[in-house]
Amino acid sequence: MTIEPKILKGFRDFLPADEITRRNLIEKIESSFRMYGFVPIDTPALEYTEILLGKGGGETEKQIYRFTDNGGRDVALRFDLTVPFARFLAEHRASLSFPFKRYHIAKVWRGENTQRGRYREFTQCDFDTIGSDSAAADFEILLIMRNTLHAIAGENVTIHINHRGIFNSFLSRLELSEKTVDILRTVDKLAKSGRDETLRNLSEITGSNKAEEILRFIESSGSFEEILAAMKNAAGPSSCFERLEQIHNHMIDTGISGSFVLDPSITRGLDYYTGVVFESFFTDLPGIGSVCSGGRYDNLVALYTSDKKLPPLTGVGASIGIDRLIAALEALGKLETKNSYAQTAIAWVSGAAGGACQALGEKLRKAGIPCEVFLDEEKITKQFQLAEKKGIRWLVIPNSVDPSGGTITLRDLSKRENREGLDTKEIIDMLIRGRQ
Amino acid sequence: MTIEPKILKGFRDFLPADEITRRNLIEKIESSFRMYGFVPIDTPALEYTEILLGKGGGETEKQIYRFTDNGGRDVALRFDLTVPFARFLAEHRASLSFPFKRYHIAKVWRGENTQRGRYREFTQCDFDTIGSDSAAADFEILLIMRNTLHAIAGENVTIHINHRGIFNSFLSRLELSEKTVDILRTVDKLAKSGRDETLRNLSEITGSNKAEEILRFIESSGSFEEILAAMKNAAGPSSCFERLEQIHNHMIDTGISGSFVLDPSITRGLDYYTGVVFESFFTDLPGIGSVCSGGRYDNLVALYTSDKKLPPLTGVGASIGIDRLIAALEALGKLETKNSYAQTAIAWVSGAAGGACQALGEKLRKAGIPCEVFLDEEKITKQFQLAEKKGIRWLVIPNSVDPSGGTITLRDLSKRENREGLDTKEIIDMLIRGRQ
Repeated sequence: MTIEPKILKGFRDFLPADEITRRNLIEKIESSFRMYGFVPIDTPALEYTEILLGKGGGETEKQIYRFTDNGGRDVALRFDLTVPFARFLAEHRASLSFPFKRYHIAKVWRGENTQRGRYREFTQCDFDTIGSDSAAADFEILLIMRNTLHAIAGENVTIHINHRGIFNSFLSRLELSEKTVDILRTVDKLAKSGRDETLRNLSEITGSNKAEEILRFIESSGSFEEILAAMKNAAGPSSCFERLEQIHNHMIDTGISGSFVLDPSITRGLDYYTGVVFESFFTDLPGIGSVCSGGRYDNLVALYTSDKKLPPLTGVGASIGIDRLIAALEALGKLETKNSYAQTAIAWVSGAAGGACQALGEKLRKAGIPCEVFLDEEKITKQFQLAEKKGIRWLVIPNSVDPSGGTITLRDLSKRENREGLDTKEIIDMLIRGRQ
Repeated sequence: MTIEPKILKGFRDFLPADEITRRNLIEKIESSFRMYGFVPIDTPALEYTEILLGKGGGETEKQIYRFTDNGGRDVALRFDLTVPFARFLAEHRASLSFPFKRYHIAKVWRGENTQRGRYREFTQCDFDTIGSDSAAADFEILLIMRNTLHAIAGENVTIHINHRGIFNSFLSRLELSEKTVDILRTVDKLAKSGRDETLRNLSEITGSNKAEEILRFIESSGSFEEILAAMKNAAGPSSCFERLEQIHNHMIDTGISGSFVLDPSITRGLDYYTGVVFESFFTDLPGIGSVCSGGRYDNLVALYTSDKKLPPLTGVGASIGIDRLIAALEALGKLETKNSYAQTAIAWVSGAAGGACQALGEKLRKAGIPCEVFLDEEKITKQFQLAEKKGIRWLVIPNSVDPSGGTITLRDLSKRENREGLDTKEIIDMLIRGRQ
């Protein structure tokens, strides 16, 4: 019997080069989070369905991987990291110190329509600060977004910010509060649908005059201060403006205000955000959409907290879309790919003992040089081929039974050049220099 | 409505301190694998059940998380990383270069009996070399096991090795080949059941004379050479001994033979191993059992390969049990725990601006010092409390509106000592020295 080796639609294997790319990216992001004192957590892939669906499913319920386990429990695979985090906070509240700054990088599963190029298993990367309502907390998330994306993708990343409360006041002034949900949904598609279609759709909801006014509002342009003034004019004064001004002052104090744009069109659709909201854009790649978005939200743990005397846990956070970020880096020509962490291999040619090759490998590793040792005694031409296939640049060729005896050849496969008659120390020096 | 924030039995949340411990360990293991030229891969959590159960389930079938997805497919969560790897190799064989050295660190799921202290979600950590039948490949896996465990747990780790073929020849000499499975199962429990019970159980299978002979065989002791001679005497000569001698020569060449013991009692039970097998033991902690075990196996991809002209893909590999390793390190007092990657925080006390605190934080981070900035303006005593709760050692206290102006205090919370009147450069120098 033979079983066809196939994987499920919407799921992916990661071959070494792709997995190394993905890991390099995640390691850069993690090391950035750690620099800011953010700490990692992890939660189960599988939860009670009741926990994940909360007040009710809608779209989510259709996409979730849900089943009854062997113990008769109604369980499901997590579809995001926010809902499990809310459950985590409610459950461990007493053991955590607030403000709690955490990150979580893990797989999530959604039975999405794969025809839209979506995956059913993908990695989410969330970072949030819980338990501080300060502008400093909002700003810190924006600072981390900016610095992390700049470190990975270069400086042509701009972050657009807005405040959900301002849009709400504006709609209230237009006496459209009851239609907020429909309007947000329409406005959120502006970039995709274009101005004309958005205007048509809005007009159906609000009438054409108000639709024009809404579009004019979200299309305000100019400096941070100019747009703020225009928005205040249209929506009326509120504490939301004070919050945006405080955040802007933080940007000025840290010298990074040039990376941010106040953009009234950013609303983050139907999400649970209640305060500032933000999205990131590549200046050179406007079509790719936001690779890192987020905002401030109200009491995340309300649904899981029966003790109503406990104060609410508000938070602010963002999520990086790893797949989209990789696609963006690829389009920008900024994706580093390599087939191995080792750029050096030790050939095993006739005359040298296998154990001696591995002993030489250990000397290189002790000097900090990652190195693969070839495992089968073969002709040198076959070893060249294998090294090239594996993307290895430096091939160390010991020519005698005792390779530490000064008869080693170092071949630079990228230049097809040999240096002969070297000893171990010379090899190590050349490899350390070669890496720089 | 309130939903009780509970998790499934056998599943775990990882709070920051535990998750940092887990990650530190995994990062050390990964960096060791990378030094040897091993490359990472990843595969889906969910696979067709047919792929995972292969020829038939038995114990596995009862433990697997299996369900029908929304598309009507019979799917299951992976219960190990070996079966998905076999499918992966069969599917991507043409894209890989052999010998293929890969590692895979990922979660797996089994609906095990939690009363035995088992988890239903746990991390596996596998590394294998596929496509070389050489003794050098066997040895390299042993070398990596040894060096990785020594780097993590110190030098009191011993690796016991054996060859499955020798035990098979020995049983064949005793005319017990047909009872191999039952005998292996009994012998594998020797450490747990003790000598007397094992002897009784063996006697029921083989009669008491042969049972004594089997126990005498697996209890051979002495140097590697002495045990090898005793085994050869009992089992008769075969190529298995040559293989063990080659591996032993590699150990001598690299100067690490002291870490290995030839141990005829190691059989790895009913596993799919066909060549060398090995387990690791902590000298100071014999009860914990093996934290890293493995061996050589035959054609891993046979079940998924319909083209019978393709040569078999043999391999050798090992798996590290992360949970058991953490338990061992804890028992040995060698588990480093910390609550944060940042040991430094910047307090926000009255007089200093929040943006200026974050600007000072950026200067520290640019100098390579991970640091958290406190987000709410509070009395200094509250900031001390928060820092202590978060496990932070150094608290930087800017005393004026412009904290870069030479009026910063550095508090060492571990000694409750203040240094006052510092400027940014002095703070950075002291923190860099303080870490060493």
